[in-house]
Amino acid sequence: MSWLDEVPWNDQGLVAVVTQDASSGKVLTVAWMNREALQQTAERNEAVYYSRSRKKLWRKGEESGHVQKVRELRIDCDSDAILLKVEQVGGIACHTGRESCFFRKLENGKCVTVDPVLKDPKLIYKK
Amino acid sequence: MSWLDEVPWNDQGLVAVVTQDASSGKVLTVAWMNREALQQTAERNEAVYYSRSRKKLWRKGEESGHVQKVRELRIDCDSDAILLKVEQVGGIACHTGRESCFFRKLENGKCVTVDPVLKDPKLIYKK
Repeated sequence: MSWLDEVPWNDQGLVAVVTQDASSGKVLTVAWMNREALQQTAERNEAVYYSRSRKKLWRKGEESGHVQKVRELRIDCDSDAILLKVEQVGGIACHTGRESCFFRKLENGKCVTVDPVLKDPKLIYKK
Repeated sequence: MSWLDEVPWNDQGLVAVVTQDASSGKVLTVAWMNREALQQTAERNEAVYYSRSRKKLWRKGEESGHVQKVRELRIDCDSDAILLKVEQVGGIACHTGRESCFFRKLENGKCVTVDPVLKDPKLIYKK
């Protein structure tokens, strides 16, 4: 039996994945994997997600070059979430050009952007 | 319009929540909130989740005493995930008596328990 069989894939065949910078501990993204994505991630040691909007595998960094090199893969107590600790190539995980997708903070009942854009997305996605 | 309206609640009315220790940066849990849970979390500054198995609100620590005091609440770029940075009372987030629910690591194709039990769950859940 493979460890992949332990995951109780949801009704769309997906599992939630938290990705954290291995050095800084910053949470970069929450994304989704299907079985194939999780298997490829473990084999390649680079994050491969499943894009729910595009309905296909998504090799993180395939367009941007911002690959996530997996340093550690963990699974939670009820096996329904994955934690990746990664080296984030380029230091940018978010499609907005920010380090992390969690760049908005709740302050006095409003979501306020608190982290800077490190690189213009037009320069990241040239196509 | 409330910031709660920005969340694209999934078809079960839930959003994924990553909870991280504010001091150590350790990822403690991945859980779920419905609108009421998220609102209560923001108002009380203590984590309130929605238990999918029990189908009701779940004030983290209500039985164990292991309350999560919210130091920061963040929302991601497409608003479909929440990040809580918390002070974990008792230093234990997992029902197994461990600090984090992510206590198993993938090593050579197997999930191996790498973190210790800090307190016997029988002593945590006395009822």
